[in-house]
Amino acid sequence: MTIAIGVLGATGYTGGELIRLLATHPKARITHVTSERFAGRPLSEVHPHLRSVKTPLCQALDPEAVVDDCDLVFCALPHLASMKVVPTLLEKGRRVIDLSADFRLKDAKVFEKWYGAAHPAPELFSEAVYGLPELYREQVAGARLVANPGCYPTSVLLALTPLMGKNLIDEDWIVIDSKSGVSGAGRSPAQETLFAEVAEGFKPYKVVGHRHIPEMEQELGIAGGGKVRIRFTPHLIPQNRGILSTCLVRPTKVRKLSWWVDFYRDRYRGEEFVQVLDAGVMPATNHVRGSNRCELGLAYDDRTGWLLVLATIDNLVKGAAGQAIQNMNCMWGMEESTGLDFAPIFP
Amino acid sequence: MTIAIGVLGATGYTGGELIRLLATHPKARITHVTSERFAGRPLSEVHPHLRSVKTPLCQALDPEAVVDDCDLVFCALPHLASMKVVPTLLEKGRRVIDLSADFRLKDAKVFEKWYGAAHPAPELFSEAVYGLPELYREQVAGARLVANPGCYPTSVLLALTPLMGKNLIDEDWIVIDSKSGVSGAGRSPAQETLFAEVAEGFKPYKVVGHRHIPEMEQELGIAGGGKVRIRFTPHLIPQNRGILSTCLVRPTKVRKLSWWVDFYRDRYRGEEFVQVLDAGVMPATNHVRGSNRCELGLAYDDRTGWLLVLATIDNLVKGAAGQAIQNMNCMWGMEESTGLDFAPIFP
Amino acid sequence: MTIAIGVLGATGYTGGELIRLLATHPKARITHVTSERFAGRPLSEVHPHLRSVKTPLCQALDPEAVVDDCDLVFCALPHLASMKVVPTLLEKGRRVIDLSADFRLKDAKVFEKWYGAAHPAPELFSEAVYGLPELYREQVAGARLVANPGCYPTSVLLALTPLMGKNLIDEDWIVIDSKSGVSGAGRSPAQETLFAEVAEGFKPYKVVGHRHIPEMEQELGIAGGGKVRIRFTPHLIPQNRGILSTCLVRPTKVRKLSWWVDFYRDRYRGEEFVQVLDAGVMPATNHVRGSNRCELGLAYDDRTGWLLVLATIDNLVKGAAGQAIQNMNCMWGMEESTGLDFAPIFP
Amino acid sequence: MTIAIGVLGATGYTGGELIRLLATHPKARITHVTSERFAGRPLSEVHPHLRSVKTPLCQALDPEAVVDDCDLVFCALPHLASMKVVPTLLEKGRRVIDLSADFRLKDAKVFEKWYGAAHPAPELFSEAVYGLPELYREQVAGARLVANPGCYPTSVLLALTPLMGKNLIDEDWIVIDSKSGVSGAGRSPAQETLFAEVAEGFKPYKVVGHRHIPEMEQELGIAGGGKVRIRFTPHLIPQNRGILSTCLVRPTKVRKLSWWVDFYRDRYRGEEFVQVLDAGVMPATNHVRGSNRCELGLAYDDRTGWLLVLATIDNLVKGAAGQAIQNMNCMWGMEESTGLDFAPIFP
Repeated sequence: MTIAIGVLGATGYTGGELIRLLATHPKARITHVTSERFAGRPLSEVHPHLRSVKTPLCQALDPEAVVDDCDLVFCALPHLASMKVVPTLLEKGRRVIDLSADFRLKDAKVFEKWYGAAHPAPELFSEAVYGLPELYREQVAGARLVANPGCYPTSVLLALTPLMGKNLIDEDWIVIDSKSGVSGAGRSPAQETLFAEVAEGFKPYKVVGHRHIPEMEQELGIAGGGKVRIRFTPHLIPQNRGILSTCLVRPTKVRKLSWWVDFYRDRYRGEEFVQVLDAGVMPATNHVRGSNRCELGLAYDDRTGWLLVLATIDNLVKGAAGQAIQNMNCMWGMEESTGLDFAPIFP
Repeated sequence: MTIAIGVLGATGYTGGELIRLLATHPKARITHVTSERFAGRPLSEVHPHLRSVKTPLCQALDPEAVVDDCDLVFCALPHLASMKVVPTLLEKGRRVIDLSADFRLKDAKVFEKWYGAAHPAPELFSEAVYGLPELYREQVAGARLVANPGCYPTSVLLALTPLMGKNLIDEDWIVIDSKSGVSGAGRSPAQETLFAEVAEGFKPYKVVGHRHIPEMEQELGIAGGGKVRIRFTPHLIPQNRGILSTCLVRPTKVRKLSWWVDFYRDRYRGEEFVQVLDAGVMPATNHVRGSNRCELGLAYDDRTGWLLVLATIDNLVKGAAGQAIQNMNCMWGMEESTGLDFAPIFP
Repeated sequence: MTIAIGVLGATGYTGGELIRLLATHPKARITHVTSERFAGRPLSEVHPHLRSVKTPLCQALDPEAVVDDCDLVFCALPHLASMKVVPTLLEKGRRVIDLSADFRLKDAKVFEKWYGAAHPAPELFSEAVYGLPELYREQVAGARLVANPGCYPTSVLLALTPLMGKNLIDEDWIVIDSKSGVSGAGRSPAQETLFAEVAEGFKPYKVVGHRHIPEMEQELGIAGGGKVRIRFTPHLIPQNRGILSTCLVRPTKVRKLSWWVDFYRDRYRGEEFVQVLDAGVMPATNHVRGSNRCELGLAYDDRTGWLLVLATIDNLVKGAAGQAIQNMNCMWGMEESTGLDFAPIFP
Repeated sequence: MTIAIGVLGATGYTGGELIRLLATHPKARITHVTSERFAGRPLSEVHPHLRSVKTPLCQALDPEAVVDDCDLVFCALPHLASMKVVPTLLEKGRRVIDLSADFRLKDAKVFEKWYGAAHPAPELFSEAVYGLPELYREQVAGARLVANPGCYPTSVLLALTPLMGKNLIDEDWIVIDSKSGVSGAGRSPAQETLFAEVAEGFKPYKVVGHRHIPEMEQELGIAGGGKVRIRFTPHLIPQNRGILSTCLVRPTKVRKLSWWVDFYRDRYRGEEFVQVLDAGVMPATNHVRGSNRCELGLAYDDRTGWLLVLATIDNLVKGAAGQAIQNMNCMWGMEESTGLDFAPIFP
């Protein structure tokens, strides 16, 4: 058995990463690849690093043709573009993993507020499963439509959901300072992501109102059983890949660091892609690069009473394409690590 | 008139930066340069970028010789080394700007706790002036001994001291997430600062108990008139220069962003090296690189009630050598910007 | 006396560098700045690092207005755009330093062949002075129109012109392998200069037929008194600034390395911006960064009989804006180093 | 069947890469890992990116213990250290792939001249097979001792051996300009490979007499049937991984570029890891990163008569660990691509 797979929007970094990872997946066969700009041309023209991978020629996006060729469709289209295609694919009986933000939220009003556009298919919100397998693997297994989480939310939710709803922390005081490599900003030419603007140029951006906030608040709220407000500050790192989220919370009572390490280890026991580091060890983006892993480091500041949870992932793998494949593995009843059981690449 | 200047510990990045900046200062003349490792050899062997700058040969450190040659001594020695030399220099009537941490704290017990060593000259603590001219320029002007601030503290204190002691914020809730370029880690060979370990490897370090904390708490406390505890998390950026500190505080009452911008502009009116950016504009490390400037960006998150103050400096200039020269200018009654009135270099 | 200066095309990296350097020049006053995209707006919107520099608002390019405001005009416009403006400026009696390639060549046919466009003002070719002061300072002094050299040619000509026309090398065998930082590719958004495409992505480009070749062959030919053909391979380095040119030539007879070092030192004696390194010392791009310096390293390979001349410059300073100001200094009879006598910035 | 494998010298970048790649090889089982510095401790302390890989604890090097545990030994020890261990391993009947330079040369005098030390086991020179499978796969298959090629030589020999001995080029005129990422300089702390020294600091090094020269000349000479002298200039790129070698040769007669492309494609037909790019397409280091691939780009300069062959590899994979595994696959009669059939990682 192999799964016939379509990748919509293959020319960005996420699309390229999907194809790179699917190329060595034992059960995947890429049967359809779309790109408006490169329609009719080989994918290697836009992804020279994939010269050794066999894929069909790029095609302009035609949902009917996608349906004909595929069992499963990965949508790596921009926000607000996926929503126009996904309903058709589902109607025709195809399963979809959508990597955009279009189906991550549960509330149409929240979507409209943060994305500034009405959603044409809000009826799918209740059906779409938020594709963080560590939280929802059973629902993912049976889903027609999986909304693959955003990159920042993946790091933050793996760091913080274990704490929610258990009276362990004051849930009104969550402060998150995140940093992302430049590939997270996409591949469209823009002055602000030119090499000479980014190198030696660490900076914050969208410090109030980043669009990943509602997704994080929704899922933290579900985990905690209430409404949550987070303080979230994203920054741009002069490096290609990697997210580090520095999360601060206030424990409701004093506990030793070792207690917290044990607590997280209990929570993530058996999880192949989440590793809780030893007390005193901190994560670094280049220790997970190229892998589907999330590493969590813990520290307790007894001078001030803050607990730190630091999470690192590769934004293109566990933060996008790798997690999408992990979801595919769930949906088809395979081991979640199928095709993803490789170590990070360093240096 | 020129000032005869000695630079002790000239072979590190801070020493090199001092000499680079002093070379174009209209009143400075470098008369004495020390390095144990390069004694007897030209400074350009260890600082090839200074080939065009005329300096005396390096000498091994001999306080008597320093006294003979210099009016003013910049100590760029490691922590715990300055303290052994400075008393002698002062006794002989020389003025000293110390770039180490040895004279920044006012309390010998605090020093001992954070630096793990008894201080041989705690009697100098009360005399030493904390050399942040925007706070202490009058005291600096008359000082024999100036303790040049740490790089992180410079960014944080310029960001936060204006808020202290005025019932503007809840002073118990100060959260600081800082990021520094690698030159801040010094020039001694170490695996963790090798290129291949740092590039693509953003990471936190010393997340509990970084040694710059007591210095920041001391000065915030002085500014506020009470004891202050901060939550401080430093990170290492894969770039040469630059610090960005993301500071979060909780205003005691709701005010518009424009009010805060005006407030900061009032505070820093006439300050040549501190710029408060327009509402909506954020600082970036490459917009101050190579200059003595600090840029402050403000944002208010009305969803959560946090005020953000983001500060960026060049860690080797306003965070070390440039600030030291600004202090020298104060001490000799010159315009503070003398020799420092150049724009940042970008890209 | 100050020189009233216009900068046409101020929003690119070269324009920004001109303004950064002119800001501290004791005789320069920037009176006119053009940008089509930012007309009517402050320059700091596009060059945030120049917030501390006072300049007039940007204007759309109007030659009449430029003439009214300026004694000297720096054209930092794209190739094929300068040529449309420069004749007007000259007619009105203004002096011009053109940083494009439009007036560097002496032969209209060669220009047309390499740039694919007829030149509207070839009559200016004989008047325009090739602005490499180390070769042509007397002509520059009296020029109305100076054609500022390209960045690669600056490094190569300083490395190789001393050897030409003296029967020292076989002039038919010149092999040049050059490498440039990304700022040389300009500031226009393009996929190929995005951070994520360049970082970790060293590569060659235009390996046959780079447009700087005719300029180098022209000047080497003039220096040597004959026709020269060079083999030239440019590459892109994942760094912001800096050019290193590795030049290989074949001496006509065996000489020791020390002979060559002496020979180059004789040639460049008294040149403030060219340094011939000691035998065994090699140049590096970060040892000249931010300065107007060119460093030359020499090596002789007695196994194969090749002589190596390695040259490094900062492509935006000695390779563009700094050299333009050096030319201005020549034209106005000042010390060439006026406003340019600062050391490189490292790290 | 699995191969029991020892890795001697596991704590460097090459050792780490070997273990990363062996971890997903279907026939490999790592049974022994040595490190003097980390003896008795888990490998993940020095290679945090390998936390998810199961390996035995590090041991101090004891040849007897290695022999007991292993069928095959990869020596990733420094030059001049391998030679002391390898003879013992062979005597005890183990097969060895040595990644140092100790067994690459065929002539003991040449070794002594370039490495400055007498070789204790020159009798192994004739037995050791130079492990470039594209040249010597049959000999590798039967070898007890494989000398894994250097990183620069791998790129250069794949680029140039096809041209040798066929009267296609003038073999007296071979000019090679190579550039390598910093991981090639190893993991020992040194000032010159600190981040702040390398970033923005492209530079040449060992421009005369790099130790990879005799290895390249030996193999080009064997391929050509005569003595060869090359001009070789290495440079350091501010990036982690990747080599680009720009090779220039002089064809003996004028041929179109398409002829050369066809010629190389004939030569490398069926080679899984060597790709000859289309005319007009140039290789880039980030298009092979993390893979065992070598990409070759060709260009012909009809103005000067030079043919360019540009080769790129990942120095740690095809230039070291990946090629070693390719050799292992040969030695055990497996498909050469076993465990190596993954695409490059980009960006």
